[in-house]
Amino acid sequence: MAWVVAKRAAAASSSSAMKSVSAAAAIWMRSYAKVALGTDIVSAAPNVSLQKARTWDEGVSSKFSTTPLNHIFKDKKVVIFGLPGAYTGVCSNKHVPGYKENIDKFKAKGIDSVICVAVNDPYTLNAWAEKLQANNAIEFYGDFDGSFHKSLDLVTDLSSALLGTRSKRWSAYVVDGKVKALNVEEAPSDVKVSGADTILGQI
Amino acid sequence: MAWVVAKRAAAASSSSAMKSVSAAAAIWMRSYAKVALGTDIVSAAPNVSLQKARTWDEGVSSKFSTTPLNHIFKDKKVVIFGLPGAYTGVCSNKHVPGYKENIDKFKAKGIDSVICVAVNDPYTLNAWAEKLQANNAIEFYGDFDGSFHKSLDLVTDLSSALLGTRSKRWSAYVVDGKVKALNVEEAPSDVKVSGADTILGQI
Repeated sequence: MAWVVAKRAAAASSSSAMKSVSAAAAIWMRSYAKVALGTDIVSAAPNVSLQKARTWDEGVSSKFSTTPLNHIFKDKKVVIFGLPGAYTGVCSNKHVPGYKENIDKFKAKGIDSVICVAVNDPYTLNAWAEKLQANNAIEFYGDFDGSFHKSLDLVTDLSSALLGTRSKRWSAYVVDGKVKALNVEEAPSDVKVSGADTILGQI
Repeated sequence: MAWVVAKRAAAASSSSAMKSVSAAAAIWMRSYAKVALGTDIVSAAPNVSLQKARTWDEGVSSKFSTTPLNHIFKDKKVVIFGLPGAYTGVCSNKHVPGYKENIDKFKAKGIDSVICVAVNDPYTLNAWAEKLQANNAIEFYGDFDGSFHKSLDLVTDLSSALLGTRSKRWSAYVVDGKVKALNVEEAPSDVKVSGADTILGQI
């Protein structure tokens, strides 16, 4: 809902977040090749790791370890969704709760992991996941430098919303690293195609 | 304390955060000129704005407004401190609480604003400030793209701690935009010179 308000506010503003989003979406359409049905995510993002959400103290204890994509996807059925950021509107109110509420349906379909990823550091992402009480159902991974989303051409400039370079809103069903279903929203305000209900029908 | 642990962990790790910090500190020593005693912060960071910490919905309502430095510093006595990030160790456990607990002493010395700034988006910073119960005493401002800290040569690469480009840990006493006292830690694990006690003695 808040993103809908954002869209209205943006309509009245020449330097709006939504105009940036539209421009970024147009760019993305021209560079669609990086991720599509059949893409092997591990190969498409070589040498890229994600960072498991955790507290700062856990980060220190782990010596700031990261998780190679291979460990996340190999021999697994994964549902992964990306979103613009912790502590933003639709992400908090709709996108994450939809996956959390349907976790039993995903498990019943044989999904090994439901993963949320965002261009945030893993400590911020962990605090947000705890606040949403979603960290038991969903695995959260940070992409603090955006390298994962950049490799897949899934970044967008949300500087006009005071966020900087972030992830588009998207979801994918991935089997042993291969993309079997992919849904990318045209605007980050939308949860038209990237919500839990849609991808449940694609598994 | 957690950063002390980080330092120990880093000592045993070839790709440690602390080594990056040391390297960055060395670079900083060579480029000290941008901010020093007497610097006019508003002139040193032209066309730079900060983003008042707020919820996403407040961000939408404000049309994602930003605050020019002139509004923050002009005709005011300001104590400002910067830190590596929301939801990290020393920042949460020591740096912010020190300023919060001494807010009455700052006010008694005629300080108009005590400001915390970090390379975070304003929504994340707001959630963290609320968690620390510090947002009534201290004003929090995000520097989401790091442009404020870059202008003042106060950034450091904390990618090894999974944070990316962030602020050094620092504090300053600023009167009508002019820096009257400046304290920059050599390592972000330290609160040797940038804490509330030190700057209280410099006002």
